[in-house]
Amino acid sequence: MVAATAGIDWRAIAQDFAQIVGDRHVVQRREELLVYECDGLTSYRQRPALVVLPRTTEEVAQIIKVCDRHHIPFVARGSGTGLSGGALPLQDSVLIVTARMNQILDLDLENQRVVVQPGVINNWVTQAVSGGGFFYAPDPSSQIICSIGGNVAENSGGVHCLKYGVTTNHVLGLKIVLPTGNIIDTGSKIPDMPGYDLTGLFVGSEGTLGIATEITLRIVKAPEAIHVLLADFTTVEASGQTVSDVISAGVLPAGMEIMDNFSINAVENVVTTACYPRDAAAILLIELDGLETEVAANSQRVEAICRQNGARSIRTAIDLQERLTLWKGRKAAFAAVGQISPDYYVQDGVIPRTQLPYVLREIEALSQQHGYRVANVFHAGDGNLHPLILYDNAVPGELEKVEDLGGDILKLCVAVGGSISGEHGIGADKRCYMPAMFSETDMDTMQLVRQVFDPQRIANPDKLFPTPRTCGEAARARAQQHFSDVERY
Amino acid sequence: MVAATAGIDWRAIAQDFAQIVGDRHVVQRREELLVYECDGLTSYRQRPALVVLPRTTEEVAQIIKVCDRHHIPFVARGSGTGLSGGALPLQDSVLIVTARMNQILDLDLENQRVVVQPGVINNWVTQAVSGGGFFYAPDPSSQIICSIGGNVAENSGGVHCLKYGVTTNHVLGLKIVLPTGNIIDTGSKIPDMPGYDLTGLFVGSEGTLGIATEITLRIVKAPEAIHVLLADFTTVEASGQTVSDVISAGVLPAGMEIMDNFSINAVENVVTTACYPRDAAAILLIELDGLETEVAANSQRVEAICRQNGARSIRTAIDLQERLTLWKGRKAAFAAVGQISPDYYVQDGVIPRTQLPYVLREIEALSQQHGYRVANVFHAGDGNLHPLILYDNAVPGELEKVEDLGGDILKLCVAVGGSISGEHGIGADKRCYMPAMFSETDMDTMQLVRQVFDPQRIANPDKLFPTPRTCGEAARARAQQHFSDVERY
Repeated sequence: MVAATAGIDWRAIAQDFAQIVGDRHVVQRREELLVYECDGLTSYRQRPALVVLPRTTEEVAQIIKVCDRHHIPFVARGSGTGLSGGALPLQDSVLIVTARMNQILDLDLENQRVVVQPGVINNWVTQAVSGGGFFYAPDPSSQIICSIGGNVAENSGGVHCLKYGVTTNHVLGLKIVLPTGNIIDTGSKIPDMPGYDLTGLFVGSEGTLGIATEITLRIVKAPEAIHVLLADFTTVEASGQTVSDVISAGVLPAGMEIMDNFSINAVENVVTTACYPRDAAAILLIELDGLETEVAANSQRVEAICRQNGARSIRTAIDLQERLTLWKGRKAAFAAVGQISPDYYVQDGVIPRTQLPYVLREIEALSQQHGYRVANVFHAGDGNLHPLILYDNAVPGELEKVEDLGGDILKLCVAVGGSISGEHGIGADKRCYMPAMFSETDMDTMQLVRQVFDPQRIANPDKLFPTPRTCGEAARARAQQHFSDVERY
Repeated sequence: MVAATAGIDWRAIAQDFAQIVGDRHVVQRREELLVYECDGLTSYRQRPALVVLPRTTEEVAQIIKVCDRHHIPFVARGSGTGLSGGALPLQDSVLIVTARMNQILDLDLENQRVVVQPGVINNWVTQAVSGGGFFYAPDPSSQIICSIGGNVAENSGGVHCLKYGVTTNHVLGLKIVLPTGNIIDTGSKIPDMPGYDLTGLFVGSEGTLGIATEITLRIVKAPEAIHVLLADFTTVEASGQTVSDVISAGVLPAGMEIMDNFSINAVENVVTTACYPRDAAAILLIELDGLETEVAANSQRVEAICRQNGARSIRTAIDLQERLTLWKGRKAAFAAVGQISPDYYVQDGVIPRTQLPYVLREIEALSQQHGYRVANVFHAGDGNLHPLILYDNAVPGELEKVEDLGGDILKLCVAVGGSISGEHGIGADKRCYMPAMFSETDMDTMQLVRQVFDPQRIANPDKLFPTPRTCGEAARARAQQHFSDVERY
């Protein structure tokens, strides 16, 4: 049940907040609120009633206590780069923005630990520890702007999560302000603490269990050597098979990324220095890291596997400049697709790696059937697909059709034993699809856990789980119908 | 609140169970119940009212529904090798033994997944997949007898968890019979599913959230090459420093184990083939695995680091026979100590790796102060200590004194930012120490989560968390006093 907010005296609430954080850090003018009305999922928009920018755990706790007292929903927001609408405000809600909570609180290089506030930018962590020879592994493509707090909420991944794992594998402890205003500490600086793993429970909970105000991260040793290989193939299947064969050979690259012909050409139109082969059906980028000798040996091995699978050419980059050149096209891929089409819709699904060739063929068939071009750029090693569906939002009704195609792609992912989200989260975008993956008992159990943390359901309500209000009984039935021929796996 | 079991008609309950699993699989005769009165923590004993051995998820659900209906506490038991009393029965409880749930349900080598029942023995998993070139990484020393279900309950580690992680890093999905008899599915065959990570929450919950009846495990590629190095040192500190230096050099061994002089001599008394140097202050065993070239390069690097730290000699084993010889003494260490002393008490604590030299010195001081010999054999790479305290249980009052020394060692672990359990769990043994690590709000939150799964508190009640009954207000106060000078970290 969502808290009732009718009759809230917002002026009084703003004054309460001003007492806590100071006048300057409470935003209430309509035109100033405009910038907060959506996150990276720009197709959903909603202006919040108030925005407040705390600086400390104590301030967050006091703000939340005000919300708790008046049954006001709150939504936490980091940098607002999320792609599933996790930081989308609700009507009559308070948006708690962590931008001022940007301090690195502790650096313990010897034990490979860093404690940060949630507003610290992902890339700052690596910058802070690189002098000591370390880096912070999870690297979403928005890493120069996205916040660690947002990464924790969405359990973010990135190009290197094949080898290094996603955010949950790098968070050891949390200080959390619960939706009641109480503060708990979970985990610690050492891994695998006794008791229930509340740290693991919180990571990926998309703002529905409270706000993490101190985050203890594990940092890893920067590799001695890095090689990047670019192999080009005349069929997409061959690139997918190569990915499976590399893993089967016992080599674990830092990352393996595939781009299809459409994406290659999109990139080549705008990035002149990458020099990707325009006639390739797919290119595969493989990053190998580790000790010099290890990387050299693995490079040879991977090159042999690429050739066995019919790679026409292989470029290997060893020095930093060459490596950046090879990556440049991949990094620019989304923007490049944006140059071709007025709009694109990014889908995010996961499949077992062995299903890559089949699923890519099916996506192509769906693309033709629905009449929309789909560009494939994805974390192939993890089976994490990112199909980009090209469309024109100015044409009424297009978005809905594109969402249908996106839904069909998700359905395909689930049918082969995969998932409806790899790293972007469920947020507002995919909540109605949750029943395709979880039984009612599974979801009821999650809801009861949520209730422990948030008895009034004021922490990012309406996200992550389907509700009659957001999905509607009709919409919910439709989502279920949509997936009705998908066998539970 | 523990369920009231007064006035239970055990004969009727036994009949109910017999209907579910068959007469032969319900144990009720006093002399037959004897073998179930303790697990690996033999200092606690309690006969259960009944033992029942189901074979399927459905049977487990039906048994639990009977318990739920009559408010009867139940305790799950795998092989009974646990060292913290997690499978210790309660008076008037039902012990649900998973020994007959010993089927490997699915092998998917291509996607590196295995689905097993909880009674499957840890080592069987590796046996089942080794032909395909894989292994199951978590390897507690009891791996030839302990069950996967028990490993999940205790989040077991082992010698190789430095590189590969503990059980939670290898469990992707679970089918769980909740303490209400309802069944949920968590996770899946692919990692990082959306929604709350109930899989992670369940792993390590020590039987308090239900019984996992199907467990999806991740298996890993068996390494191409393995080297084992044995370095001997004239000070324990030098061996500890070597461990830190190896990690700092960017090498991640599969495992790093230290044995002190006392343990070396205990082993040499009984294992004649290991040939550990009796005059060494400590030996360090380092296992390196990976590709041939990588391991060869890392071996050289590690050898150089050992010499820099004053290693007197280094033996390197490459072929299987030599490797087993070097490991033989380590594997026999606990038994060898058992030959010297009538009894020993194994402690299990964790410290940040950098604190190793300091903590080992302090343990020696505590040993002298309390007047008990302490042998140190431990997973040095993880900072997971296993001090063995030697004593004679036949002498009245000795166990209590030894537990005091064990408590002082835990206090030391917590004081340097460590934990009261590395891999053995809390169980019945350490529940009264939990307030040393967690605030009341932290533990209250865990208890509320427990209540979601187990509203009647019938699943392994009295374990993991302190209660007035088990710790007593006095005992609880004493434990808190015991840790009162330990600053929260």
